[in-house]
Amino acid sequence: MFESAELGPKVTKRRYAAELPELRSALLKAHLSLKGTSTPLIIIISGADGAGKGELIHRFNEWFDPRGVDTQAFWQSSDEERDRPRYWKFWRALPERGRIGIFFGSWYTEPVIRRVHHKITARRLDLELDRIAFFEQMLANDGALIIKFWLHLSRKKQLARLKDLESNPRSHWRVLPNDWEHFELYEDFMEAAERSIRRTDAGHAPWHILEASDKRHRDLAAGRILLEALEKKLREPRITGTELAVHAHASGPARRGSPDQATILSGVDLTQKLDSREYKLQLSKCQSLLSRLAWAAWEKKVPIVAVFEGWDAAGKGSGIRRVTEALDPRLYRIVPVAAPTDEERRHHYLWRFWKHIPRKGITTLFDRSWYGRVLVERVEGFAREDEWRRAYLEINDFEDQLAQSGMVLSKFWIHISKDEQLRRFKLREKIAFKQHKITDEDWRNRKNWNGYQVAVNDMVARTSTKYSPWTIVAGNDKKFARIQILKALCDHIKAAL
Amino acid sequence: MFESAELGPKVTKRRYAAELPELRSALLKAHLSLKGTSTPLIIIISGADGAGKGELIHRFNEWFDPRGVDTQAFWQSSDEERDRPRYWKFWRALPERGRIGIFFGSWYTEPVIRRVHHKITARRLDLELDRIAFFEQMLANDGALIIKFWLHLSRKKQLARLKDLESNPRSHWRVLPNDWEHFELYEDFMEAAERSIRRTDAGHAPWHILEASDKRHRDLAAGRILLEALEKKLREPRITGTELAVHAHASGPARRGSPDQATILSGVDLTQKLDSREYKLQLSKCQSLLSRLAWAAWEKKVPIVAVFEGWDAAGKGSGIRRVTEALDPRLYRIVPVAAPTDEERRHHYLWRFWKHIPRKGITTLFDRSWYGRVLVERVEGFAREDEWRRAYLEINDFEDQLAQSGMVLSKFWIHISKDEQLRRFKLREKIAFKQHKITDEDWRNRKNWNGYQVAVNDMVARTSTKYSPWTIVAGNDKKFARIQILKALCDHIKAAL
Repeated sequence: MFESAELGPKVTKRRYAAELPELRSALLKAHLSLKGTSTPLIIIISGADGAGKGELIHRFNEWFDPRGVDTQAFWQSSDEERDRPRYWKFWRALPERGRIGIFFGSWYTEPVIRRVHHKITARRLDLELDRIAFFEQMLANDGALIIKFWLHLSRKKQLARLKDLESNPRSHWRVLPNDWEHFELYEDFMEAAERSIRRTDAGHAPWHILEASDKRHRDLAAGRILLEALEKKLREPRITGTELAVHAHASGPARRGSPDQATILSGVDLTQKLDSREYKLQLSKCQSLLSRLAWAAWEKKVPIVAVFEGWDAAGKGSGIRRVTEALDPRLYRIVPVAAPTDEERRHHYLWRFWKHIPRKGITTLFDRSWYGRVLVERVEGFAREDEWRRAYLEINDFEDQLAQSGMVLSKFWIHISKDEQLRRFKLREKIAFKQHKITDEDWRNRKNWNGYQVAVNDMVARTSTKYSPWTIVAGNDKKFARIQILKALCDHIKAAL
Repeated sequence: MFESAELGPKVTKRRYAAELPELRSALLKAHLSLKGTSTPLIIIISGADGAGKGELIHRFNEWFDPRGVDTQAFWQSSDEERDRPRYWKFWRALPERGRIGIFFGSWYTEPVIRRVHHKITARRLDLELDRIAFFEQMLANDGALIIKFWLHLSRKKQLARLKDLESNPRSHWRVLPNDWEHFELYEDFMEAAERSIRRTDAGHAPWHILEASDKRHRDLAAGRILLEALEKKLREPRITGTELAVHAHASGPARRGSPDQATILSGVDLTQKLDSREYKLQLSKCQSLLSRLAWAAWEKKVPIVAVFEGWDAAGKGSGIRRVTEALDPRLYRIVPVAAPTDEERRHHYLWRFWKHIPRKGITTLFDRSWYGRVLVERVEGFAREDEWRRAYLEINDFEDQLAQSGMVLSKFWIHISKDEQLRRFKLREKIAFKQHKITDEDWRNRKNWNGYQVAVNDMVARTSTKYSPWTIVAGNDKKFARIQILKALCDHIKAAL
C-alpha cells in the first residue's frame, strides 16, 4: 500500500516558490468561506516518526487564518481524561462548525500503538477501527469534512531522518525516546497502520498517503488535497443551522404510526400505588441503601449516569430529588437539559452531553437528556427524519462506550396517563409556587400526545440494550414511582459493584 | 464572635411545618425572578464538621428550582486543577448570571486548613484573606450576590454530633477520618475561622453565623437570610447585559486626554530597522534558542503566557507566527480573542481568559486579550467608565496570581505610526489574500486613533508591573519587530528557568 504513496517528480525550490503563492491564496480564501458554514474541518496528521508531521502542521497554521485553527496534540492524558470513557478527550477537542481542527495524534494513535506492542489482538484492533469508522461517519453526517494524512517514510529514510533530527541542536528535542523504540518495530508499525488505513478509508473520511521524503512535495501535495476537498465541500448546497430547522419544518414533523395498538407504554399498569405508611418505610430503606451504594461506588471508582425522561408533569423533578436526598453533595451533579447554547449548537448534538460525563466514582443525573433528539426534536420537527433516524444508532454507540468504561447507566421513562397529566396541569395552575412549572409549551406538547407516544415506544424499543435497559416507571401514583426509581437505581449499582 | 450566633428559641416541629411553606414559596418565586437578570447568586456554606453543611445544601436544592442550581464541592483536585493557578478551579465553577452556585468548600477552605496545621503564618493567612476579599468585591461589582454561611457548633455539640453521625449506618460515611483530626484542633480551627470571617465580612459579601445545633432553626434562619438578600437585590434597578451596553453608549465613550503630550508611545523610535540578511541570521538564532527554552520550560513545568496587542495591521499575526514556528505543536496553543460567546457574556469578563490558562510546561499565546476591557471596550464605550477603571486593578490581581503560580508572562504592544497603518491598509486592499484582513471596523478604529492612544498609554502605565512588564515593540519595520518579540520572549523565559 505504502509503495503507492503519491510521489511525483522531486519538487525544486524554484517550482515550490512559483506554485506556493497561488495555492496559499486559494486555501485562505476557502478557509474564509468555511467560516459561517455548518461544516467543521477535521484534519488528521499521522505517519512515521520523523516524517515531518509537526512541520506540516506549522505549514497549515501558516497558510490558513490561524485565528480559525485549533491544533490538538494528544500526548499525555490528564487524570480528568483518564477517569472518563476514552473518546471524552476527543469530543472535547472537536472543532466548532466553521473552524479547523488539526489533530496531531488522534483516535488512531492508541489502537495502533497497542497493536504494535501486541497488547491487543488483530481482532480487537479491527473492533476499535470499526468504532472509529462509525465515529467519523457520524461526524460526517453532521456536516464535518474529514481529511486524513499518512506521511510515509521508508525504513531507510526514517533512519536517516531520525539521525538527522537528532544531530541538529534545534530539532534534537523532536526525537523522543520512544521514536527509536518505534523504529525497531518499523515492520509491525507499518502492518498495523496499513490495516487501520484500509479499514477506515471511506468516501466521507478518506486517507491520503504522502511520500514524505521530499518536504516540498509533501507540503504542496497536502495543500492541494486540502484545497480540492474544501472547494468541493463548499460547492455543496449550503445547509446552515437555521436553514436546517426551516427545512425540517417544511417537510413536516413525523407523527405517523397508530398509537392505539398495543405498545410498550400501553402495557404499563398505572393503577399501582403505595399508601403513605408503606411509602415512608420503603423510602427510608431505599435511600439508606442508595447512600451506602453511592459511597461504595466512589470507593470502587464506578461512575454512574442516571437519565430521567417522562411526560410533562410526570414527576421527573420530584423523582430526582428523592435520589439526591440520599447522596452526599460531593458525589453527584444534576445536569438540567434545556435549549442548547450557541456554542453547543456549533457542535454535534451529542457534544454537550459528552461534556458532562462524570469522572470515576461520581454520579450525574440528567434531567432530560440526549433522548431529546428522538423525542421533542423528532415530534416537533426540529430534526430532519434522517437525523433522528440515525440517532438511535448514535445513541446506542454512545451508551455502549459509557458501559464499556465501567459506567452504571440507568434510564427512566416516567409514564402517566393523559388524564392524570390534565389533573396535574390544573393543580399546578392553582398552586402559587407551582405555577412556574406549567407553560404554554406544556399545553402544546399535550396536543401532540399521540406523536410523542409513538416516539417513546420507538425510543424504548430501539435503545433498550442489555448494558443499558429502560425502566418504565408507573407514575400515576407519585409515591409508587419514586420507590420504583430508587429500587431500580440501587439494583443497577449493586449489580455493577 | 461565635457566642453571638443567631440562636432564637428552639424551633418546634409544629412551628417549622407552619412557617416553611410560605418561606419556600417566596424563595422559589425569588429564584424564578433571578433568572434573566445579570446577577449570579453565590452561596458559600462553611462551618464546623458535623454541623450539617450537606443537609443545608439538600434543603436549598429542595427549595429552589434545582434546574437553576449548581452545587460545587471542592474536595479532591484533579491534576488539571493542580497544574494551574489556585483560583482556576473556582473560576471554572462560578455560576452564570441568573443561576445559583452553592459552594461546599470554597476559596476559604485551603487557607484556613493550612493555618490550622501551622503550614502558613497568621500574616500569610491575612494576605490570602485579602485576596479573597478582592475576589469577592470584584464579583460583586460585576453584579454577583454573595451570601456566606458559617454553621457553628460548640465543641461539646460537635463531639456529640460526630458520634451520633458515626453510629448511624445511613450517615456514618459522612464522618471522614480528618473530621476527627479537625476535632482535636477545635480551638485552632475556631481561631482561624474567626480571623477569616472578621477580615472578609463585607457589605457586598456578608457572613451569617448560624447556631447549628437545632436543625430546624438552622434551616429556617438560613432560608430567611437568603430570601431577604435576594428580594433586596431584585428590588435594585435591574441592569441586564443589554441595558448595560446601551447605558454605556448613552453616557458616551471616554476619549479625553491630550494625545499630543509626550507619552510612552510617542517615545518609541519607529525608525529602527533590520536588513534582510541580518534578519535571517537573527531569526534563525532566536527561533533556535526559543525552541530549546520552550522544551526546557516543559521539563521544568514552567507555564508561559504571551499576550499580543497592537494597532490594527501592526503585525500581531505575523509576530505570533514567528514564535509558533519555533515551538513544538504539542507545547503551545493560540487563543484568538474576538467577541464573546453568549456563555461568556453570562460571566465576569475575566472568566473566558481564566478558561484558557495553560497547564504547567505549556505556552498559550493570546491574539488580543483581557486588555480589550481597557482598550476597545473603553474607547468604543462597551464598558462603563467605572467598569474599565476598576479593570486595571482586576487585571493586575489576575496577572499577580499567574506570576505567583510560577508562570512567565510576556506582554507585547506592537506600535506603528498612523502613516504606516494607512500604508498597510491600502496594501491589504490590493493583495487578494490579504483583503479579508481589512474591514470597515479597521477604518472606524483608525478614526479613533487619539482615543486609543490615550487608552494604550494608560494601560501600559497602569499594568506594567515588575512581574509582568509590557514590551513596546517598534513595529514600523516588520523584521525589526519580530526579532524584538522573539528576543524579549526568550529573555523572559530564560530569567524564569
